[in-house]
Amino acid sequence: MGARMDLLRSLAQKGTSKMVLLVMDGLGGLPSENGQTELERAYTPNMDEIAAQSECGLLEMVDLGITPGSGPGHLGLFGYDPLEFQIGRGILEALGVGAEVKSGEVCARGNFATWTADGTIADRRAGRISSEKNRQIIDRLRTEISEIEGVRVRFYPGEEHRFVVVFSGEGLSEAVTDADPQKEGLPMKWASPSRPGGEKTADAVNALVRRVRQVLSDEPAANGCLLRGFSGAPLIPGLPELYKINPAAIATYPMYRGLARLVGMEVLDAGRTMEDLFSTLEAHWDAHDFFFIHVKYTDSRGEDGDFRAKREVIEKVDRLIPRLTDLHPDVLVITGDHSTPSQMKGHSWHPVPFLLQSAWCRPDEVLAFGERMVARGIHGRIPASSLMGLMLAHGLRLAKFGA
Amino acid sequence: MGARMDLLRSLAQKGTSKMVLLVMDGLGGLPSENGQTELERAYTPNMDEIAAQSECGLLEMVDLGITPGSGPGHLGLFGYDPLEFQIGRGILEALGVGAEVKSGEVCARGNFATWTADGTIADRRAGRISSEKNRQIIDRLRTEISEIEGVRVRFYPGEEHRFVVVFSGEGLSEAVTDADPQKEGLPMKWASPSRPGGEKTADAVNALVRRVRQVLSDEPAANGCLLRGFSGAPLIPGLPELYKINPAAIATYPMYRGLARLVGMEVLDAGRTMEDLFSTLEAHWDAHDFFFIHVKYTDSRGEDGDFRAKREVIEKVDRLIPRLTDLHPDVLVITGDHSTPSQMKGHSWHPVPFLLQSAWCRPDEVLAFGERMVARGIHGRIPASSLMGLMLAHGLRLAKFGA
Repeated sequence: MGARMDLLRSLAQKGTSKMVLLVMDGLGGLPSENGQTELERAYTPNMDEIAAQSECGLLEMVDLGITPGSGPGHLGLFGYDPLEFQIGRGILEALGVGAEVKSGEVCARGNFATWTADGTIADRRAGRISSEKNRQIIDRLRTEISEIEGVRVRFYPGEEHRFVVVFSGEGLSEAVTDADPQKEGLPMKWASPSRPGGEKTADAVNALVRRVRQVLSDEPAANGCLLRGFSGAPLIPGLPELYKINPAAIATYPMYRGLARLVGMEVLDAGRTMEDLFSTLEAHWDAHDFFFIHVKYTDSRGEDGDFRAKREVIEKVDRLIPRLTDLHPDVLVITGDHSTPSQMKGHSWHPVPFLLQSAWCRPDEVLAFGERMVARGIHGRIPASSLMGLMLAHGLRLAKFGA
Repeated sequence: MGARMDLLRSLAQKGTSKMVLLVMDGLGGLPSENGQTELERAYTPNMDEIAAQSECGLLEMVDLGITPGSGPGHLGLFGYDPLEFQIGRGILEALGVGAEVKSGEVCARGNFATWTADGTIADRRAGRISSEKNRQIIDRLRTEISEIEGVRVRFYPGEEHRFVVVFSGEGLSEAVTDADPQKEGLPMKWASPSRPGGEKTADAVNALVRRVRQVLSDEPAANGCLLRGFSGAPLIPGLPELYKINPAAIATYPMYRGLARLVGMEVLDAGRTMEDLFSTLEAHWDAHDFFFIHVKYTDSRGEDGDFRAKREVIEKVDRLIPRLTDLHPDVLVITGDHSTPSQMKGHSWHPVPFLLQSAWCRPDEVLAFGERMVARGIHGRIPASSLMGLMLAHGLRLAKFGA
């Protein structure tokens, strides 16, 4: 654990203040229309009014020039050094399909596949079976297999041919090679330990693949499976334990719900629409003191390369902001987890604008919420992992350091 | 190796983008004429136009208040933490006379000197012999001495009485005191180990000084030598290995050529004039993806204390800029390796202005290239060693960090 996290933990104290972290995924952008970014161009009177009363700046999510994935982006916002706490792809995938993964468990990404009688892999995606068919098969597996070689297993369906397995038990390890020939027309390639300590898990993996093959032998296409990308849940100290808060997550997408669960947040039923996010916030306002609200569509429209649509998502969020401010949070932060400029159709390294409003602000000269306006804000550019401590400070949740 | 360098190395990937780092040595200055610095005062329409489309800021070369030598200044620009990777003066001097020095070798600065028969040093500079005479003597030494006490030696002539020796072999060390009485009229002071491990090198050094004395005994003035400033070549991982780039250096002065070679750049024949630098760039444009161009004279005129002449060098570079921009580099950085304010006639600690232009910029409000304009740029002040990663990011050479 880093020195800063240790320091914050030693100073954190319970309180009654309410803190809200509103994350618009992939918020940051690059200039295009009218020489402005999506956020600069968007009509956001509510956010601009808040910005004028706020301390503003840019968040460096990982380090200068580094493009963060969704995992590191959110861990940084939650106060974790994203270089110290790394999350494997297998875990993120598992969280993404709604799997609940605990420390010490190991996840794998699975494909349903078509095996020939002699053990050759004819189709690594089983003809891309429907997601509906996938769920039926997962139900069969759940009925037939709950344990293999003394290791408990749980199955979670994904889209089309994809699924996730979580292995649970003593002495498991992520040091296991893929049980997957990677190419079609090749004989099955079995898992093996990639480092000492991986033997038990490799044996369980191979046994599970054989057992799945037996159970599904009468399936026309998905008569077997492949497993790859083994990764263990990282040992992450939870936010309640670290900061004496009682945090809740309001997010629609499974991956962000899973990330929030991993850091000890209670994950609320968030509905499906953007309006639902704010209804959930209102409904649970009394029950928690820290709320993480996640808006996915800024990122989605950025990934689509649709400048206007991304701008419109931002404007829609802005129209919903009064529902949030009517609750009078003591601390409000609005920001993103990384940049997704629509020109780049993907995540980028550009730092992310943020504003922080509380009764204890030194409002700067920033009068509108935008990348280049907040760059002149009072915080300049700070590491994203510093933000959580700043929120706690403004929530009067940190004792004085030293006498 | 630092965490950032490790991270960049793990994310670096090959690509086709072209990156140019144009360094005006000692670029930074202090206000004088018209209350402006050399750069602010200079008429630089080309650089100003680029600045208006760029992300700008100031580079902190080593740390606040620290004046960098040329070694740390350039290592920072090349992405190395200058506190972690230190280069001794002996090595710089050796590089400065065109010596090729490899890891594990030890260099020393030499003076030809006038010895009396009883071993007193009568003139530590041998009457400042001509550089032509120096080269003749070096030729004699090269013919007569290639090895001493099992250690291989190479000689390189410098200006007037100065030369460089490179020692090569097993078990060499830089932990050796100077073989130099430092003052004239004193008896020779022989080298000795300054730490355990320096014995073998000290013996070789003293044996070499004695052997030179024998070989040159018939010389009227330069009848012996002194050796000092022993230093080993640092273990520096090269840029091609670190970042999967194929870098080239275009520099006239030997020391900068040597520094570039030390970090794995191919050193191109750069001609003698400033125009030649840009001709070399044009001629080799297709062969490399990263170019370091070094302009020496900004520093030289600053060291002279000549504000106007330094300003004129900057203006001359500006007139040559179109030859660079006509090549349409994907990433262009213009900066310096340290400040050399003409008022101070030497290096200073003041941070150095930079601009970075690419298709993926967030241009800030900086409309002209100058120290105090770029201080309001979107980057504020960043460590110089972060710049290389930023260039790689804008060249789309870094994969995403984390899933």
